[in-house]
Amino acid sequence: MRIAIDAMGGDFAPKAAVEGAIEASKAYGVEVFLVGLKEEIEKYITEEDKKSSHINIIEATEIINADESPVHAIKNKKDSSMVVGLKLVKDRQCDAFVSAGSTGAFLAGSLLKVGRIKGIDRPGLSPLVPTMKGSCMVIDVGANVDCKPRNLLQFAIMGSVYMEKVMGIKGPRVGLLNIGTEESKGNELTKEGYKLLKEANLNFIGNVEARDITEGVCDVCVCDGFVGNVLLKSIEGVAATVFNALKNEFMKSFKTKLGALLLKGGLRDFKKRFDYTEVGGAPFLGIDGIMIKAHGSSDTKAIRNAIRQAKLLYDNHCVETIREEILNSGVDNENEQ
Amino acid sequence: MRIAIDAMGGDFAPKAAVEGAIEASKAYGVEVFLVGLKEEIEKYITEEDKKSSHINIIEATEIINADESPVHAIKNKKDSSMVVGLKLVKDRQCDAFVSAGSTGAFLAGSLLKVGRIKGIDRPGLSPLVPTMKGSCMVIDVGANVDCKPRNLLQFAIMGSVYMEKVMGIKGPRVGLLNIGTEESKGNELTKEGYKLLKEANLNFIGNVEARDITEGVCDVCVCDGFVGNVLLKSIEGVAATVFNALKNEFMKSFKTKLGALLLKGGLRDFKKRFDYTEVGGAPFLGIDGIMIKAHGSSDTKAIRNAIRQAKLLYDNHCVETIREEILNSGVDNENEQ
Repeated sequence: MRIAIDAMGGDFAPKAAVEGAIEASKAYGVEVFLVGLKEEIEKYITEEDKKSSHINIIEATEIINADESPVHAIKNKKDSSMVVGLKLVKDRQCDAFVSAGSTGAFLAGSLLKVGRIKGIDRPGLSPLVPTMKGSCMVIDVGANVDCKPRNLLQFAIMGSVYMEKVMGIKGPRVGLLNIGTEESKGNELTKEGYKLLKEANLNFIGNVEARDITEGVCDVCVCDGFVGNVLLKSIEGVAATVFNALKNEFMKSFKTKLGALLLKGGLRDFKKRFDYTEVGGAPFLGIDGIMIKAHGSSDTKAIRNAIRQAKLLYDNHCVETIREEILNSGVDNENEQ
Repeated sequence: MRIAIDAMGGDFAPKAAVEGAIEASKAYGVEVFLVGLKEEIEKYITEEDKKSSHINIIEATEIINADESPVHAIKNKKDSSMVVGLKLVKDRQCDAFVSAGSTGAFLAGSLLKVGRIKGIDRPGLSPLVPTMKGSCMVIDVGANVDCKPRNLLQFAIMGSVYMEKVMGIKGPRVGLLNIGTEESKGNELTKEGYKLLKEANLNFIGNVEARDITEGVCDVCVCDGFVGNVLLKSIEGVAATVFNALKNEFMKSFKTKLGALLLKGGLRDFKKRFDYTEVGGAPFLGIDGIMIKAHGSSDTKAIRNAIRQAKLLYDNHCVETIREEILNSGVDNENEQ
């Protein structure tokens, strides 16, 4: 399998991207294509690695920054690591693309340069959120801020395929994020979406509430991108706030410091459970290729895990299965008015 | 000041409601009107309390349950503790109403029985969320699931009045909950809402992200009720999940148990900070009266704090100020098409 890596994207680029890619190529036997400034990339590759047939450098001279207008940047910076990486997938020279760069550019670029799976109206950005029972895919978290009910149905189908194929969950439980569990609850979008999900060939468990996501009430949490973004960021924010507040409590006195020391291992295990670097990146499902958006603050381990995730999508034929399921479901975009 | 209490609402009614009301009447010198089944209420009142001129019982023979259709229940159960309590405010026999009962019935009943402040299109349910710096009012969290931009502006005005008058914050920082901080971000609603907020006479700090709310980035967080509900419940859910996971870690071995023992005081202080019983209830701002929705699982302390909050609204002329500010702002509902 050949994976293109945006070597210039992310807070710790190119170091984390390059080192993560090299680690992954060794651990998972994938061929990696590091896209970016050759000179910068080579700083983090040993002489021995340079000789490996599994590690390639593809020169790209421009970089897209987080504060640029995504569509403008994709259209104008044709030699950026993002655009060159996306083109490798478009031209079938690579099977997947992994980037920790600008989320907006990643989304816009995937749509413009690689394109959608036939039948999908709106691809969904879909990270895995850690829960008490494992993880839950939230789809969409920001690619589509104004959705139609049929978009929600397509998100549900794609999320189910991912959780079944990649995570090995038989009949993944699909929940519709809502403000109450009763069928009658919600806004116009969720009320209509509920009807479509109920009729679909899915393990739809009904409405779910935000408070139950981290408890593990469902395997796929379907929502429009605005709401999903708020959910994701509040989970991130509260977890960070709680950890920081806890740290402050622990540093208050000798007694509490001693207590914290005794709990160290447990706290580490615990923090690990809420650690995004463990789960890899967010696949952008619905694009006609394997696209993984790694967190902007990804370190080496996070990049390695994102590459591992791309391999799982590839090995388990996730894109092909989504294509089939959408066609079988009859919600392909040819129905759209 | 006279406060009506729904003695039959909430998971621990009537005990928590009655005991909380008696405690509050003693602590804050308010006159309380306990509405519900006389016989049930009297079980929790001592002979001495019964003689107090500050504690009154208003008989109401029906109870509205959480699973009833709110509008139907309000219209049909005319002798319920909820409807009788609301009527006490409507008829100006009481200055405020506090209930831990069905949220849906509380919202529908407030609108139908008490009515809106002149100029307000949509009242907003607006709890205080604990943050690292104090608390943040989130408005709305579920009363209005499909909002218009002008609703957001009215929420912002009402929230600002509350935080200034009741919490004593000069020029409260108003943030618009969005998926990014740039002005161009968001869905149709927030893009239009942004323009209105920017022009208003408010300390508008721009868009805020969900991850920054618990850090204390703003004093008033404005959002439509669907999104606010998701935000609130995910904060609740993650905090609960983290505390439970932590507890499990602490019980793993003798060493960790000892560590937890040494940290006990700190952990208690910490948990207290995220404890809803400390902040009281959620005011339903925009109703022409002081309406406090206490959490369904309110204990005695939570009810007492909700009554204290009602008194603060009263003492600081919050309803009157909202009325004036809405008229001054020119966004009163007479402009609506």
